[in-house]
Formats: sequence, structure tokens, C-alpha cells
Amino acid sequence: MIYMDNAASTQCDERVLAAMYPMFNSHFANPSNTSHSMGEEANGHVNEARRLVAKNLNCLDSQIVWTSGATESNNLAILGSIKATQSAGATRNIHVVTSSIEHKSVLSPLEALARSGVEVTFINPNSDGQITVADIVASIKDSTKLVSIMHANNETGVISNIEGVGQILKERKILFHTDASQTFGKFNLDVRKLGVDFLSFSAHKIYGPKGVGGLFVKDEAKIQPILHGGGQELGLRPGTLNVPGIVGLGKAAEISYVQRETDANRIYEFRKRLEAALMSIHPAITVNGHQLERIPNISSVSFPVKQGLRLTDYINNIALSTGSACDNHDRAPSHVMIKMGKSVHSARNTLRLSIGRFTTEDEIESVISELKLVTRGLLT
Amino acid sequence: MIYMDNAASTQCDERVLAAMYPMFNSHFANPSNTSHSMGEEANGHVNEARRLVAKNLNCLDSQIVWTSGATESNNLAILGSIKATQSAGATRNIHVVTSSIEHKSVLSPLEALARSGVEVTFINPNSDGQITVADIVASIKDSTKLVSIMHANNETGVISNIEGVGQILKERKILFHTDASQTFGKFNLDVRKLGVDFLSFSAHKIYGPKGVGGLFVKDEAKIQPILHGGGQELGLRPGTLNVPGIVGLGKAAEISYVQRETDANRIYEFRKRLEAALMSIHPAITVNGHQLERIPNISSVSFPVKQGLRLTDYINNIALSTGSACDNHDRAPSHVMIKMGKSVHSARNTLRLSIGRFTTEDEIESVISELKLVTRGLLT
Ligand SMILES: Cc1ncc(COP(=O)(O)O)c(C=O)c1O
Ligand SMILES: Cc1ncc(COP(=O)(O)O)c(C=O)c1O
Repeated sequence: MIYMDNAASTQCDERVLAAMYPMFNSHFANPSNTSHSMGEEANGHVNEARRLVAKNLNCLDSQIVWTSGATESNNLAILGSIKATQSAGATRNIHVVTSSIEHKSVLSPLEALARSGVEVTFINPNSDGQITVADIVASIKDSTKLVSIMHANNETGVISNIEGVGQILKERKILFHTDASQTFGKFNLDVRKLGVDFLSFSAHKIYGPKGVGGLFVKDEAKIQPILHGGGQELGLRPGTLNVPGIVGLGKAAEISYVQRETDANRIYEFRKRLEAALMSIHPAITVNGHQLERIPNISSVSFPVKQGLRLTDYINNIALSTGSACDNHDRAPSHVMIKMGKSVHSARNTLRLSIGRFTTEDEIESVISELKLVTRGLLT
Repeated sequence: MIYMDNAASTQCDERVLAAMYPMFNSHFANPSNTSHSMGEEANGHVNEARRLVAKNLNCLDSQIVWTSGATESNNLAILGSIKATQSAGATRNIHVVTSSIEHKSVLSPLEALARSGVEVTFINPNSDGQITVADIVASIKDSTKLVSIMHANNETGVISNIEGVGQILKERKILFHTDASQTFGKFNLDVRKLGVDFLSFSAHKIYGPKGVGGLFVKDEAKIQPILHGGGQELGLRPGTLNVPGIVGLGKAAEISYVQRETDANRIYEFRKRLEAALMSIHPAITVNGHQLERIPNISSVSFPVKQGLRLTDYINNIALSTGSACDNHDRAPSHVMIKMGKSVHSARNTLRLSIGRFTTEDEIESVISELKLVTRGLLT
């Protein structure tokens, strides 16, 4: 099995595991109990991870809130900021802008808000898979309180102009959230330049552990907790801190900081080779999304498969996705491909191949041979 | 440093770590993507853990919902069931019964509901630290939709009669939640006998990893999600599953199932020795809470310290708590001790000593000597 599903989740880096290990069996105290030195020590490790993550985002340590992953971060940013807005007096006429190609963990909380009376505009991407600044500006109203636009899409890898959006929203004093699950630790992210109020990230996309992530919160006054409990994380996120997970996330961020460019260059070469080889199989094979404004590790490739057939039924040796893991779960066609104008048949025959730090040249060549072989006779 | 804070968090068992390890670097695929065998494999490990946990609770595998810990489980049970009740038509006049000695992760979501108009009754414990069935029955009204009472209190270890409450609530068709964070994996819990609709548990209290837990949900129709996203966990809890954490929780549950009685007996002997020795220091030293209905691993001991002094300021070699970690965080006196009738001074001079699987006899003797030494001159 060749793993080409790194956008869904990644293998933990051995250095991350090594950093986590002592947290399980030596520094296992509850970091909230700093009345004894073992708790203080655990808390120290949490704070060191906070520093490493904040360095990656060019923010203050105190602006990082740990969560159980980007799904929770997205829920906290969206539901928590709307709650704060409502508490501040805006109880009617709240408008939120987002895109129709967001991850389910952004779409679903917004759909829940819509059911409760909040007005939500879902902007469609252009044919390149981008959400344009112009479309966002056009959708803004006096009642717009929040805009949530993902940095890079998890199916196409296409990047939208977050910085451009950020500038405009800052002038208009509208809160801005971006889901950076696919770019955190892979890009030089600077929350000041991006102009965001909230930014979501997750460890397991960057060779860290599953079940831990965080939210950058520019100003804690603009958000309220959605889970209630002890006073952890500025009162914004209760629960015993996941010390091993947080330390793992910190280490993953530290490693990324050092080698993200090396990784990106290597992965980009692999992707070029892969896409060129696949496109040479058949003239109607297309790589989806903007060709330049795209993160290096994701290829979304549509195959002109004969009606009634499904390419993935014939692929046995490659771990890949058609759409996000959640869509795979439902066996539904990718909502991103549909919003980009594909038919259901074409969306179902679009493969997301995502490369990672541990992908080898041999694996890329094997993927190419396998897809050459498998598509024979299946294409129109 | 002698670790006597096992009620706050525990050291990960080496067998748990060994079970988790391959999930980080071999079975790292996203278990929601079962379209490829690596995802299926990860999903298989999650389901095996589900079976192990369900066996501990005598419930169906499909009645386990994974969460990031008992804090989230408590929030999900309380906020999610009230949401479902409201969706089913009850929008006014909702009454919830709980106790004043619950963990903050139960009290805080209920306080949030109270602010939104739900009526909440907080029952005080008797002088033994128990919440009585009689007091619960007396507080029930026609509008009571939910009762949330913890199984064993995390500061005193005192157990309330959940089974007795369960029987009465079943007849009256009132939803029943119990926070079993301190008893799961330590007792033979049977959700059918207990008569609960929801039961919260956490891995890091039973030698598993931090950041993972679960909720037993008897009937998914009675609860709605509080976080929104992909369709994971019956649509009740979104987010990429924390495979290593879940596998660790499953392994911790499996180990507990086998050795919980051996552990309990050993720990109980240690506690008896500890309490007897401490009480011999001074006639006014008291062990708080019911002497029989109490889990073996927790001792809540109040010391008659001279006014103006604080015992913990003199203890350097023992990791222990005064109240829960959250209270320690605030430096506030334990709300449990206050509700049991202690003064602030006495609450502050109450030590929670909690024993665990890895506590040794030598450590117990050292704790005794240290406390004998330290209290000299401090007591009235
Ligand atoms: C764009 C995007 N947002 C959010 C998520 C959810 O992150 P997590 O799995 O940490 O909840 C993912 C991946 O699953 C993602 O790709
Ligand atoms: C009784 C009780 N409930 C809930 C919790 C919270 O559990 P978690 O740390 O898994 O969020 C704890 C411990 O922290 C507890 O002792």
C-alpha cells in the first residue's frame, strides 16, 4: 500500500514521538495543578509548546488556545465569536460570510447557526477553485459580523487570498476566521500579515498526533467558550490539557519551522512528476484548481472514466481519497468538486493524491505505473 | 517527589503506551476514510477499543461516543440532551437537577444553561459528602428533564447511590447522566443496573493518555451534538478520530477489567495504613466523607492548622491537591469542602491524597513521615 493520503492525516514523525514519550510516563501530572512541582513541570512543557507554535504564527504565546483538533477550533471560532457578538448586544440581524467549499467543520456549525436565525452567505469558488476577494466584498452587508474563509482547500490545495480579505475586513471591523489546517506548519504564516482574528490548525496534518490542535485568538474579548468547565486556556477551553499531544504539536511545529521549505521543494518536484505523467495517460485527464496558487502536496486529478464505472473500485495499492474523509464516510461525491462545477460522475472519478514528508521517489513512480495500468480500458 | 495526585491524572501504563505506539507510525491513516485498507485498518483498531470499553460498561459498542475527555463528555451529555429536549418541543420550563459538589465540567455547563433560562437545582451533600436519593426525589418537578449526579466525588471519593436514583428516574422518564470519571475502570460499572442514559469517562484517570474519553449514550435520539462537522460518531461528535488515544483508552479499560480488584485491594490497604497513621498525629485530624461508601484511592484529610498558616506551604516532597486541579488553578478553596460545611481555612488545609496503581509501600511510609514532620508545630 502506498500512502498518498497525507492531506487526510500523516504519519507521526519519530522526533515528535520521542518528544511525546516522556510526557506519558514521566511528566504525567495535571498541568493545571501547579501547586506541586510535577504539575509545574508539565505546565512548563505545555508553555514551551505554546512558544513553538506562536513562533510559527508570529503571535503571542497567550494568543494560542489548545483544542482537540481543527474541527473543535473551527467550532470555537465560529460559534464562540457569534456568541460573543450576541452577548455584546447584536441579537438580531447577524450575517456571516463563508464559502461553499469549506471543510464540514466550518460548514456544519454555520448551518447550525443558520437554523437558529443567523444569515449565512456561502460563496462559490471560481473555476480555479478560489474564493475571490471581490466576491467576498460584494457579499458584505452592514450586518456582517464574521467572515470565515479557509486558507488552502483540503481537496484541491488551492489557496485563497486571505491577506487581501484581511485588509478589507480590518477596515470594516468585521471578525475574520481562517481554517489553516492545510497550511499551518507548511507555510510561513504570519497572523498579523494575514489580518485574521482567529486561525485554526491541527497537529495530525503536519506529522504530529491526532486529537490535538489549536486556535489563534487575537483578542479574547471577541470570543466566548463553547465548552464549559475549569478555567483552563483563558477560560476559553476547559479540560485537562493533553500534555503529550500538545508537546507533540509543539515539536511538529518546531520541525516544520526548520524544514518546511526543504519539504515543500521535494514534495513539489514529486507532484510535478506525478501530474505530468498522469496527464500523459489521456488528453482529457485534468488537474483541478489554480495551477500556481496551490500548496505543493495536493493533486486533485479528474479522470474521464466511462459512465457507470468508478475508478477507485479498481485501485488496490494506493491509499487516496475522493473528497474529504467525511465525504468518503458518506460515500457522497465531494461537495468541493460539485461546487467547482463537476458532475457527480466526474467528482466520483476525481482522485485526491496527497504527498508527504515520508513519500519516496519510488512510491511516486509506483503510483504512476499503477494508475497507468488501472485506467487502461476504463477511460472514454 | 512522591506522586499522591492520582485522582487528578495518572501515569500511563507501559502496556497502554505499547498499544498506542504503532498507531502513531504504522496505523496512522484517517479511520473515517475506509475507502482504502489503511483507513479500514485504523478503523478496526478504533472499533476494537470500542468493544473493550463497552465490555467494561455492559453496553453495546454502538453506544460509545469518543470525545476529548470527560469535560467534553459532560458538556455533550448536558448541553446536548437539553438541546434535544428543546428540539422535541420543550422550550420553556425546563428543570435540571444536579449537586453542588459536581466537577466544574458539570457545574459550568449547567450554569450556562441557567443563564439562558433553564431552571437548575443544585443539591447539597449531607455531612458524609453524599447526595441522597431522598433529596433528589424531593427536588424533582413536572418540568424536570435531566438529572446529573456524579458517581464518586473527585475530592472525597464518596460514592452516591446512582442505582437508587436511576430506578426512580426511569419510572418518571427523566434523563439521567452520571459523571463516572473517578469510577470507570475501577469498578464493575453496569449501565443497565445503574439505570443511566449518559455516563462520562476519561482515559487519563485509569493509566491511559490525556485528551481522550467518551460518553455512553443509551439512545442517540435523546441527544444532539454540540460540535458540528463530519458525520463521525453517529453524528454526535465530529473530528478526525484520535486513534492512538482511543486505542490507549481501550487498552487501559482492558487492563482495568482484569486487574481492577487486585489494584483496589492493594490501594485500599495503603489507604487504611495512611489514614490510621495520619489520624494518630493529632486527635482533631479528620478523614472527610462516608467511611464505607468511598472509592479506595482517595483520602480527603483535614488538618487543624493554626489560623493564618497553610499546610501546603510546608510540603515540598509530595504531589497532592487541595481540591480539584481547577480549584488549585484559581487558588480558590475547594467548593466541595465548602459545601460539606468546612470553613475556608479548613478547606485550604484539607489535603487530597490519591493513591494509584504505581504507588509503593515505601512511598506511603514516606508520605506518613513527611506529614508527621511537617505538621509539627503547625497544628492547634
Ligand atoms: C481544511 C480542514 N479543516 C479542518 C479539518 C479537521 O481537522 P481535525 O481532523 O483536526 O479535526 C481538516 C482535516 O480533517 C481539514 O483538512
Ligand atoms: C469527576 C471528574 N469529572 C470530570 C473530570 C474532567 O475530566 P477530563 O480531564 O478528562 O476532562 C475530572 C478530572 O479532571 C473529574 O475528576
